[in-house]
Amino acid sequence: MVDQSDLRLYHAPRTRSLRVRWLLEEMKLPYTLESVAFAQRPAGDEAYADIHPLRKVPALADKGRVMFESVAIMQYIMGRYGPTDLDVKPDEADYDLFLQWLHFGESGMIMPVTLLLAHTVLLPEKARSDVIARSAKADTVKALALLAEHGLKGREFLAGDRFTAADISVGYMLFLLKIIKQMDDAPEAVKAYFARLTARPTWIAASAVEESPV
Amino acid sequence: MVDQSDLRLYHAPRTRSLRVRWLLEEMKLPYTLESVAFAQRPAGDEAYADIHPLRKVPALADKGRVMFESVAIMQYIMGRYGPTDLDVKPDEADYDLFLQWLHFGESGMIMPVTLLLAHTVLLPEKARSDVIARSAKADTVKALALLAEHGLKGREFLAGDRFTAADISVGYMLFLLKIIKQMDDAPEAVKAYFARLTARPTWIAASAVEESPV
Repeated sequence: MVDQSDLRLYHAPRTRSLRVRWLLEEMKLPYTLESVAFAQRPAGDEAYADIHPLRKVPALADKGRVMFESVAIMQYIMGRYGPTDLDVKPDEADYDLFLQWLHFGESGMIMPVTLLLAHTVLLPEKARSDVIARSAKADTVKALALLAEHGLKGREFLAGDRFTAADISVGYMLFLLKIIKQMDDAPEAVKAYFARLTARPTWIAASAVEESPV
Repeated sequence: MVDQSDLRLYHAPRTRSLRVRWLLEEMKLPYTLESVAFAQRPAGDEAYADIHPLRKVPALADKGRVMFESVAIMQYIMGRYGPTDLDVKPDEADYDLFLQWLHFGESGMIMPVTLLLAHTVLLPEKARSDVIARSAKADTVKALALLAEHGLKGREFLAGDRFTAADISVGYMLFLLKIIKQMDDAPEAVKAYFARLTARPTWIAASAVEESPV
């Protein structure tokens, strides 16, 4: 049994902690949500540095031990508090695709999406580079084409004929792209997939922002 | 039993395929090495696009199925061809740290290391940005400090009191930093750790470049 106090998720709206919250909602595990105000990261309140030395979110505390890296946290929760259908096991045919897309959602997409975010929205206008933005956009287009043509061809979800943590991993990156208005020209298959993911009650619960951090 | 023909690693020197080759050497699994010449990626020879749609390395073929993402491939091989001590299991105390550093080695370090690489070495001098290089250097310094102060404090390896795939993941990024001469000012604990990793016969075998691709 998981005690309510076991799992403590350090969370902020729109950040990668959404992945973990979404997974916890899917697994129906009890957890405590700790809102980390923006002022606590990446500079400011030193107290949060005791939780995450780089003052990023998410972090997960489990009985006094704390870990970070959103996709690692998802694997940790599935391994410790599973079994769950969100995981695809080594003896399943799609074990390879599951791991591939689980990692691709973060490490394969982080460079183009983060650079696109920085050079179209986050950086002050003077500091933005058109060259970098165009190159990041081109790489983003390639990543979405890969998803459409290889990940989602004839499939509703990325692996195992069901919704899994790989969809959470990739789905979060699509959410980021949506926020910065870079999903309008996405392949239809990717748009339909994103609509399917975000219609899930667990996504709606996970992305609720009623905690209203500063 | 693993047949020699089962595992086919698409590899190029100095790339992330080193991670997979290192893991295969550690696990003493038979594999076939397919050298992917630089001309085949990221543009050029369309044949390789049938293996990896983005024409990156590594890719792993296993009985006709192909996957990519180096850390995903490591997890796949451990799950399918293990058990192995390179993996840390859910019932071990360091399961959390293992997954954290396994992912941190790629997703936590990719932005600073790739930007540092691009803006100090890879891009033509005219296209390099001092601002970006300095910011990437600062983030790299933070990542190495995190490794020294949290990952390696009182530890020889990152998780499970033994060499694991987490060390392969992080070790590869340190190797990249070494190549671009960004390890000279690393914390002593990180330098000593890197020396320990690269003294392993499996690293020496994996990083041999006798195949001399163009």
